[in-house]
Amino acid sequence: MAKSEVNVGLLGWGTVGTSVSKILLNHQEQIFQNSGVRLNLTKVVKRTLPAHREGVNLPENCLTTNPAEVIENPQIDIIVELIGGIDQAYQLIIQAIRNGKHVVTANKALLAERGIELFQLADKHGVGLGFEASTAGGIPIIKALTDSFPGNQIQAVYGIVNGTCNYILTQMHEQMTSFEIALSAAQEKGYAESDPTLDIEGIDAAHKLAILSSLAYNVYLPFERIHVEGITQITDREIQYAQEFGYVIKLLAITKKTASGIEARVHPTLIPEKSILANVSDAFNAVCVVGDAVGPTLFYGRGAGGMPTASAVVADIVEAGRSASTGVVNSLPKGWIANELVQGVVSSIAEVETRYYLHLIVRDRPGVLAQIGKVLGQCDIGIAAVIQKDSHGADTVSLVIITHQALEKNMIQARQLINQLEIVSGDSILIRIEELDFAST
Amino acid sequence: MAKSEVNVGLLGWGTVGTSVSKILLNHQEQIFQNSGVRLNLTKVVKRTLPAHREGVNLPENCLTTNPAEVIENPQIDIIVELIGGIDQAYQLIIQAIRNGKHVVTANKALLAERGIELFQLADKHGVGLGFEASTAGGIPIIKALTDSFPGNQIQAVYGIVNGTCNYILTQMHEQMTSFEIALSAAQEKGYAESDPTLDIEGIDAAHKLAILSSLAYNVYLPFERIHVEGITQITDREIQYAQEFGYVIKLLAITKKTASGIEARVHPTLIPEKSILANVSDAFNAVCVVGDAVGPTLFYGRGAGGMPTASAVVADIVEAGRSASTGVVNSLPKGWIANELVQGVVSSIAEVETRYYLHLIVRDRPGVLAQIGKVLGQCDIGIAAVIQKDSHGADTVSLVIITHQALEKNMIQARQLINQLEIVSGDSILIRIEELDFAST
Repeated sequence: MAKSEVNVGLLGWGTVGTSVSKILLNHQEQIFQNSGVRLNLTKVVKRTLPAHREGVNLPENCLTTNPAEVIENPQIDIIVELIGGIDQAYQLIIQAIRNGKHVVTANKALLAERGIELFQLADKHGVGLGFEASTAGGIPIIKALTDSFPGNQIQAVYGIVNGTCNYILTQMHEQMTSFEIALSAAQEKGYAESDPTLDIEGIDAAHKLAILSSLAYNVYLPFERIHVEGITQITDREIQYAQEFGYVIKLLAITKKTASGIEARVHPTLIPEKSILANVSDAFNAVCVVGDAVGPTLFYGRGAGGMPTASAVVADIVEAGRSASTGVVNSLPKGWIANELVQGVVSSIAEVETRYYLHLIVRDRPGVLAQIGKVLGQCDIGIAAVIQKDSHGADTVSLVIITHQALEKNMIQARQLINQLEIVSGDSILIRIEELDFAST
Repeated sequence: MAKSEVNVGLLGWGTVGTSVSKILLNHQEQIFQNSGVRLNLTKVVKRTLPAHREGVNLPENCLTTNPAEVIENPQIDIIVELIGGIDQAYQLIIQAIRNGKHVVTANKALLAERGIELFQLADKHGVGLGFEASTAGGIPIIKALTDSFPGNQIQAVYGIVNGTCNYILTQMHEQMTSFEIALSAAQEKGYAESDPTLDIEGIDAAHKLAILSSLAYNVYLPFERIHVEGITQITDREIQYAQEFGYVIKLLAITKKTASGIEARVHPTLIPEKSILANVSDAFNAVCVVGDAVGPTLFYGRGAGGMPTASAVVADIVEAGRSASTGVVNSLPKGWIANELVQGVVSSIAEVETRYYLHLIVRDRPGVLAQIGKVLGQCDIGIAAVIQKDSHGADTVSLVIITHQALEKNMIQARQLINQLEIVSGDSILIRIEELDFAST
């Protein structure tokens, strides 16, 4: 019954698709040596022809503009969806699953928004749906969560999962440039799209967190339940003040299991400059998984780019190839298929307890700090450190406060009260702090 | 054909065995939720009875002193070997394999010395032989190498894989203590055995490197072919001088693929203080895998201890449970079974090219550096930096040289010539340097 060879069809031939085709064609023998699976690249679908890619010689009749030549082709065992977007990708994948084909995708938006239907359909039809490349480029974090910690209760998963934001924030820290200049640099380098909204607003990171969180807690955690803040409010002034307190600002995706449920949040975060994540630069990604048995673990590598992402796609194709040979599918996430929330609870952001960085513009006069300290105290929030900075002209100054651990709902209330004070002018900036003491978790 | 439950027998009930039994008994339902595999802990073999372990309530009639009750028990599907040592473990495992049982082991010494026979026998009998816990405690580095990079040519694997040495060197750096005091501290903390030879002489790290290297290059790389140096020659003086040059000393296990073959070496290494590995402290482990597609990746976590190691053992038991249910075994390393060396070549240490730290005791007189520089130049070795340190009494001083990239065989020759110079007294200390620029690989 075991098939000696499996046939692969690619949907999409952009950056990642080109890299996948390179690996499948150039490393076919090595993949067979490594895995015992012989992968034939049979069809590549591209929207428009002609097409040529440097260094890739596709077999004759391989390239087509018609997805049906892959989806409806009885000779093809595995389809690899790399076209991106949601609606068309969804339609093609469900048709492929119904036709009994194993599926590999790097499409985090699709999984975060409609993954539950796809996984349920794959389960019904007994096919695999691999998605290693969806979450942190070449880092095998999906495999780690699905296969490596079955004896653990996962306590937290957190990390840097968006290379665009990390590149921008690294530039702002290292060059002390503004957000706008750093964004332009990211666009020039190809790390940011011409419309960067999905990345800089934290939506891409939240798509990935929906996947990580669902795997960590064996649940289906809907994307809409994630609290999301992007990095557009982070100015070079915030970066500089954070540094003065010994912190670096990173966009973190965080999920934790607490007594009251599952926290899932994406937001800019102050982390200690000596922590490992603070030193994850440019477009690199890094994800920490904390389990009750294993303790803290970290997975670190390139989070984007054609070849790193293709590395993950090919690992999934090999696994799908094994499934095609043996008829055994292991990898479908059971929490999604069962459509269950563990304990039914995703915590509200108001229940989060953390430390805060609060930047206020206040009038430069005596007694200001006392007034603000009084409001914070009334809301059960202690002050750990304060810096008062240079005049903004007129008679205002920046007052930057680091708080002790506090409940978010108390902080929200305090901020509203503080904003009403006559001595406070303009908007305040509030950023959460995580101490991330890796070795002691 | 699929079995709904699988029965597990433990051989050995020490620290790791106790942790494994805790997880299997306390997390049985969760493991089933996570993996679809229901694991019954059926038998535990311990050398002597009675035995009691805090927090573990074994089922009735579970505990025995007789290994045959596991090995010859037709109801047991999976045996977990945690007794350590080589001969008895080997005998028990081969008998279990012949009886058609899947095997899980954490025994790196056994695999490094006799793994090839065990893997070949497991292959012949169609059973799995899991060894995730053999190499870096709870870090899923074996899974990463076997499953996550099939489309890559692995260029290098290197890292910190011995927690004892890393604890000792961390103490020496942070407390500026001697090797002997740091070793005693490690023994007190339970990080070092009363006879610490296997750890401090680098043998344990070399056992692990034999496994990593074999997986990375899909070959069988015999343990005897690895160049091994321990950390016993590292004094607090070396630690201090290294710091003055901006380096930290770590025991690294390194395997690289070069034009002339496969390098495999374990030795103390100067690495830049800002590199990630320099900041891996105490008993933590971290392993970098560099692939041609994925680029550099890092896997970091607790490298030893009962629960972290048990986390990896349980992951292997779950995989063996799947194999017991489906009849499909994926994980056997093909290079070992084929008993093949890729290109037949393990490079000699003489062919390694790297930078060096050379500490000489020389007479305190003019022209000394010129003489030594002349010898190095004759051997094609350039000097990058020099520190001359305080008098040792008499009229000798320490001369510490950092070289540019050089061939090891040239360095060996230069050192012999230098040792013959009349101005040089006592033994010199030679330590290799690796620059480890993670992000640029």
